[in-house]
Amino acid sequence: MVDSRSLHEQLNHKVEELWQEELEFLKTMIRFPSLSGKEHRLQLFLADYLTTKLKLQVDRFTPAIQQIEKHPGYSPPKWTYEYSDIVIGTHKGINPSEGKTLIFQGHADVVSAEPATEWDSSPWEPFEKDGRLYGRGSADMKGGIAAMIFAYRAVIECGYMPKNDFMIQVVPDEERTGNGALAALEAGYTADAALIPEPFGLQASVGQVGALWFEISLRTIKKDEYKQTQTNVIEKLHTITSSLMAFERYLNQTRSHLAFSDQDNPIDLNIGKVTAGDFASNEPVHATIEGRVALLPGEQISERKQELLDWIKQETKNDIWFKENPPTIDFYGFHAEGTLSDDTSPLFQELDAAHERVTKTKPTRRTLPSTTDARHFQLYYDIDTICYGPVGGQFHEVNEWVDLNSIKDVTKVYATFLANWCGVEKKIIKQDGP
Amino acid sequence: MVDSRSLHEQLNHKVEELWQEELEFLKTMIRFPSLSGKEHRLQLFLADYLTTKLKLQVDRFTPAIQQIEKHPGYSPPKWTYEYSDIVIGTHKGINPSEGKTLIFQGHADVVSAEPATEWDSSPWEPFEKDGRLYGRGSADMKGGIAAMIFAYRAVIECGYMPKNDFMIQVVPDEERTGNGALAALEAGYTADAALIPEPFGLQASVGQVGALWFEISLRTIKKDEYKQTQTNVIEKLHTITSSLMAFERYLNQTRSHLAFSDQDNPIDLNIGKVTAGDFASNEPVHATIEGRVALLPGEQISERKQELLDWIKQETKNDIWFKENPPTIDFYGFHAEGTLSDDTSPLFQELDAAHERVTKTKPTRRTLPSTTDARHFQLYYDIDTICYGPVGGQFHEVNEWVDLNSIKDVTKVYATFLANWCGVEKKIIKQDGP
Repeated sequence: MVDSRSLHEQLNHKVEELWQEELEFLKTMIRFPSLSGKEHRLQLFLADYLTTKLKLQVDRFTPAIQQIEKHPGYSPPKWTYEYSDIVIGTHKGINPSEGKTLIFQGHADVVSAEPATEWDSSPWEPFEKDGRLYGRGSADMKGGIAAMIFAYRAVIECGYMPKNDFMIQVVPDEERTGNGALAALEAGYTADAALIPEPFGLQASVGQVGALWFEISLRTIKKDEYKQTQTNVIEKLHTITSSLMAFERYLNQTRSHLAFSDQDNPIDLNIGKVTAGDFASNEPVHATIEGRVALLPGEQISERKQELLDWIKQETKNDIWFKENPPTIDFYGFHAEGTLSDDTSPLFQELDAAHERVTKTKPTRRTLPSTTDARHFQLYYDIDTICYGPVGGQFHEVNEWVDLNSIKDVTKVYATFLANWCGVEKKIIKQDGP
Repeated sequence: MVDSRSLHEQLNHKVEELWQEELEFLKTMIRFPSLSGKEHRLQLFLADYLTTKLKLQVDRFTPAIQQIEKHPGYSPPKWTYEYSDIVIGTHKGINPSEGKTLIFQGHADVVSAEPATEWDSSPWEPFEKDGRLYGRGSADMKGGIAAMIFAYRAVIECGYMPKNDFMIQVVPDEERTGNGALAALEAGYTADAALIPEPFGLQASVGQVGALWFEISLRTIKKDEYKQTQTNVIEKLHTITSSLMAFERYLNQTRSHLAFSDQDNPIDLNIGKVTAGDFASNEPVHATIEGRVALLPGEQISERKQELLDWIKQETKNDIWFKENPPTIDFYGFHAEGTLSDDTSPLFQELDAAHERVTKTKPTRRTLPSTTDARHFQLYYDIDTICYGPVGGQFHEVNEWVDLNSIKDVTKVYATFLANWCGVEKKIIKQDGP
């Protein structure tokens, strides 16, 4: 039977048909607590799914530090990748002289759900309410991974095969470094373009900031001789946190970028973690402050590091305690530069067209106040890349949610886009001999 | 052969004879990392030692909360006592109408050795240098436990037996609550007097402060509507730590105690631990501050609690963020009152005499700026109790040490004191029939 509907209509129809299955698939993914460094079990599940359901050729491997540590996009981790599998499913084009090659890339890892007690329901058991699905990773970014996988399923279950190479990459450690994405690209898994379904509300990203992690350590090296009561290292934390807040104000006052002119505070500095001491009755010796500071596109990691080092040095130099107990600053995790996109490129045009067909609305753009894996594709491999995914909220916070209708829309947009970008043709079903 | 030397000389001689064995015994104890809540393995070793080497009747049991939780000396723990054994070795007096009953009591638990990397050598491998033994618990208080055990060994190996009941109690969880000591006493293991070998330099304690633990939790309940940038809960830590330091000043300015008039700051408030957030790139929701505040003898736990609650309430009431996100204060761990001793009692006289005989110096007194298990004996069981132990330093800090000669002296003082307090007589060696 010949399907008389357009390719686009067929794909939309198939996405609707598969929707309950896509929703169950998303819920299954959320139930894996795939925290950064613990992506293994989710990745085994996905590798099996890509192999058996999508008939992709699947490669699974862990990032090897020695293969990426000299790369400018590398971020130094403080952890191993023993349980951080990369999963790559490849379809080799049946007619690669036509169409273009494409990567759908998502990250398997999610951030901590703590304090889990603050959630209205368990972060690891998806909960559906009023068209939203709640759970850690529902939006960032398992909803998007479901969309990219079911977009491809829609294509093949409509009986089509991409003419050119198509790849699904699900990578680890996006939330701390981006080394998973880098290791996949360094292993040779590249293409003409990439889509990353970050949950930015069906808007295509045209730029993102970079991110640098720091850890400032205070340590009582020399005890006070000039005071009757010892200075507790915890008292000195405040000098550093105030200084960091002043540094954020200084950065935003002294530099700007046209692409981020709509944002009040694009160079965000987050103080994320403080620890000091380990016992109520002991005087602590150590205190640490961990945080993240952004970079505008064009700003260099090495420069931001030096600025922070100089700033802290300047702010503590007149303090008698800090003179005798100088703080140390360590940079680990994110060493990510910012990036910009040319939104007149063929990739944007093709995605805009698919978006408009599915949603009947004009495409809009956004710049991201955060970093994504897109930077590796754009900066180091010259792969045109867009972040475009469902509507969600409370990313990295309690009660993270994703809008389910928007996932369905993204799945449809992705399916149409994939078919048009790679080109597709009807799969020839081999008949058994006469 | 009749030993013509005095009892005192015989005991001193025996302590010298056993010294290398006592030192090895102490080193063995230090090698057990008997952190509070993990006393189990050390306690099994000690129970075996008291049974086989000292021929004591040994009872070993864990503190049962339901048996002590209504007691005024109880401190609410946040942990279980599954691995916190109490060990009690009892000698039943051979002539209990003479002499008096006695307890030697020590605590098995030690505080954390972190940051272990700051130590000059491993905290769990004793290291001898210039007459000092370094290691976690060397002074507080395994050196003292060695002294009390070898004092009894000296007595029995000189061929004597106490006339009245004598007991060795080694208890858990002294560093967080004192519930181990309380559980032993509540189980009926009491006596006329007790000695605790806290390492206060061969001085007898005549008073100690109490201690109350608190945990102040900050939580972002309501996000700022009046600010463009959210207030990070870490910024608010400073309000609380400053407030606590002011509370300490206020307490020391407004109250005093004659017994502590030699100390500048007897009501010490220690901020021991701070934690906030768990991820550099996330905005933290929670922050906690844990600490300990002292009480002078006579001050009530319930009053100190209320004072702290009122103080924090007052200090945060004009802060718009705290108004919407009020801090909570929880009291767990130490709920210890201060105590005083009558240093003209027979116990003091007897100990003074033994001290003078061994050291040829006049006894001195001290008040303790910390809390010990002595309070339970004194306040709730009317058992005259002294803390008296070796010379040591860096208790609860890196490079804790104990002076070895002082342990030998304490062992001698204890042996003479034990013999005089309980009374002793030569053990009759039964001969086999004719």
